[in-house]
Amino acid sequence: MTAPDRNVVIIGGGFAGIHAARGLARSPVRITLIDRRNHHLFQPMLYQVATAGLSPSDIASPIRSILRRQHNAEVVLGEVESVDAAGRTVILTDGTTVPYHYLVVASGARHSYFDRPEWESLAPGLKSIDDALEIRRRVLLAFESAEREDDPLARQAWLTFVIIGGGPTGVEVAGALAELRSFALRRDFRRIDPREATIILVEGGPEILPSYPAHLAAGAKRQLRRLGVDVKCETFVTAITDTSVSAGGWTIPTRTIVWAAGNETSPMLSTIGAEQDRQGRILVKADTTIPGHPEIYVVGDAAAFRQEDRTLPGLAPVAMQMGRHVARAIVADLEGRERPSFHYRDKGQLAVIGRGHAIADLGRLRFQGFLAWAIWAFVHIFFLIGFRNRFMVMFQWAWQYFTYQSGARLITGVRRDRWKS
Amino acid sequence: MTAPDRNVVIIGGGFAGIHAARGLARSPVRITLIDRRNHHLFQPMLYQVATAGLSPSDIASPIRSILRRQHNAEVVLGEVESVDAAGRTVILTDGTTVPYHYLVVASGARHSYFDRPEWESLAPGLKSIDDALEIRRRVLLAFESAEREDDPLARQAWLTFVIIGGGPTGVEVAGALAELRSFALRRDFRRIDPREATIILVEGGPEILPSYPAHLAAGAKRQLRRLGVDVKCETFVTAITDTSVSAGGWTIPTRTIVWAAGNETSPMLSTIGAEQDRQGRILVKADTTIPGHPEIYVVGDAAAFRQEDRTLPGLAPVAMQMGRHVARAIVADLEGRERPSFHYRDKGQLAVIGRGHAIADLGRLRFQGFLAWAIWAFVHIFFLIGFRNRFMVMFQWAWQYFTYQSGARLITGVRRDRWKS
Repeated sequence: MTAPDRNVVIIGGGFAGIHAARGLARSPVRITLIDRRNHHLFQPMLYQVATAGLSPSDIASPIRSILRRQHNAEVVLGEVESVDAAGRTVILTDGTTVPYHYLVVASGARHSYFDRPEWESLAPGLKSIDDALEIRRRVLLAFESAEREDDPLARQAWLTFVIIGGGPTGVEVAGALAELRSFALRRDFRRIDPREATIILVEGGPEILPSYPAHLAAGAKRQLRRLGVDVKCETFVTAITDTSVSAGGWTIPTRTIVWAAGNETSPMLSTIGAEQDRQGRILVKADTTIPGHPEIYVVGDAAAFRQEDRTLPGLAPVAMQMGRHVARAIVADLEGRERPSFHYRDKGQLAVIGRGHAIADLGRLRFQGFLAWAIWAFVHIFFLIGFRNRFMVMFQWAWQYFTYQSGARLITGVRRDRWKS
Repeated sequence: MTAPDRNVVIIGGGFAGIHAARGLARSPVRITLIDRRNHHLFQPMLYQVATAGLSPSDIASPIRSILRRQHNAEVVLGEVESVDAAGRTVILTDGTTVPYHYLVVASGARHSYFDRPEWESLAPGLKSIDDALEIRRRVLLAFESAEREDDPLARQAWLTFVIIGGGPTGVEVAGALAELRSFALRRDFRRIDPREATIILVEGGPEILPSYPAHLAAGAKRQLRRLGVDVKCETFVTAITDTSVSAGGWTIPTRTIVWAAGNETSPMLSTIGAEQDRQGRILVKADTTIPGHPEIYVVGDAAAFRQEDRTLPGLAPVAMQMGRHVARAIVADLEGRERPSFHYRDKGQLAVIGRGHAIADLGRLRFQGFLAWAIWAFVHIFFLIGFRNRFMVMFQWAWQYFTYQSGARLITGVRRDRWKS
């Protein structure tokens, strides 16, 4: 190559962004990866942080250390304000401009509150470490408040947990909460019995886990009920206050609500000027670029990619494959070859419903129970380890001592408190 | 025993409070332990969280799970407003009243900003998990900001870290920061070299680590200098702004300041009506009670206990021994025996200055270097393991699966962010 290196700017350090960056490791490009947070997150395990099973640093890793050895990549901690597609420039909120030859938009998605933004503070969603810590704080404080509450009705409201949304996140949170209350917290309190806590999963559609075959979804529902989760389908939430949820004619007194319904993309995407669907995803072509801009790729949860008459769902494997595709397409371009089209190879999906139970939809193999859970655990632990996370304290210490690494370098927001004065 | 059980109320779940509660496990008393936070903290390792070496859940454990099997103990998450010593009642900020027969005040200490409360937000101290996460956030963001800063002077200010206070906490933070910059962060950035960061330790007294023998303190200073820490003794801080520290005639442009100087106790202590010293510690008698109130024990950092012409320092071993002493004294009382006096058995002290180097003052044995560090590591890892913290992810998973425990149940404050809209 004698041509000067090309600038590839990647917005977002999630699965899509990281895989795009890694795929370009040996290419003659200069990569700039921009993210608002300093860490990449293993999102499929985030519900474990929200339900106090894992620590943030078990499932998150600084983007800088992931790309440390990739010398053609630079990481910028910053927030994108807009994209000037005509001028081929990304503008950050602090005014910095970053010119690009290729742009990879991998900015992900957040939960959507549809037209009820006021629900957000009452029913936090679960997309970031900060979200997960907020939910963990609320859940644990609810048990503490119940322990101190003398009024039985007020106590019951503290011990009622409502999860809105019956997709994989809602199901996993409900299952993990059910186990938290039945096992980990069981002997911690003196006045309340955490096992008496009520957990309600509310889903607007006819069934939970609509992306799974019906018999697996039904099995998941049975398993949730076995764990003591009350599953209400075809139930739409009509009102949320700080002491109740109204849904399907019910009014449920509760102090802890988790939102796991609906997605929306970043408002920044609209500055690109491409067509977006109702959830704000950008409609992309077969090579995941946008019409009229072969230099702009949109991937992961930010993209609406049609394949076999459906829009690909916002799953980690889709994002990873799209990220790797972008790297291949850019390399093809640089080498003067024709760009490949993207095709998602569905290796199946897994959802966990509590300890030792999962459902697996692996193409022709569809089953549930302990074996599905064991596969889930294997796949996820395998990923987490590849991620270089977590050792026993002694191992961690020895590791740090001999490799000079430290595991917990995550920037998360905190609130400080001090003596009242 | 035929007498009705006595109420023992313990304020604070630190080393003193937990050891008092545990010491009463087999006594015919009802224990109520009140703490503002839901977790007990292994404070000697807190600097490791602030410098991104360990995660919060590595060094903190829910008080409820520590006392889970102790059926005569109840835990209340709450903040004490005042003590009504005449009425033998503790009043919480929410109005709850808790009557006691014996009161154990183990409310600890915070950093004191002397008469400059406005310095607190500019130079956070290091006493709680939230403090540590705030410092970690500031330190890591300072490197990020330096990476993005084009102006060389502004960049240098981001890369300058000032630690105020040359006691063990200040020394340990300075040493750990020096290693963070030299090793863990070394290859993470493209525009800055973290090794160029300046770390300055400011101490008002003639030497750092005044509680150690002079030759060990001098050795610690040499070791800090070897790590590239600039140690300034006999230097008093006169002004702090958000961009500089003024001390001993110097003006140091810096964006990151850590406060490790001076202690003060909770304002709540003054409601007890006992004599307090300049730091707010309550002057206690030989049995650690206060004059006129043989039912009120004050222990740990909240107490000023005179022994051999000095006031015992605020160290973990002092707090543990005082907590165990209180339990023995209450048992003696209940059994009609004479109460023992408290005597601190000094087993020595250890301070770490970076990887592989510590100073040890173990009575007649006084030495420094790798062996001192190895002893430090052994002692601390031994404590942490006793604390049942941390396993490799797989071990943790297996453990959780078979024991139904979960490790990360800590309530820490968080700030949430979302798309700007």
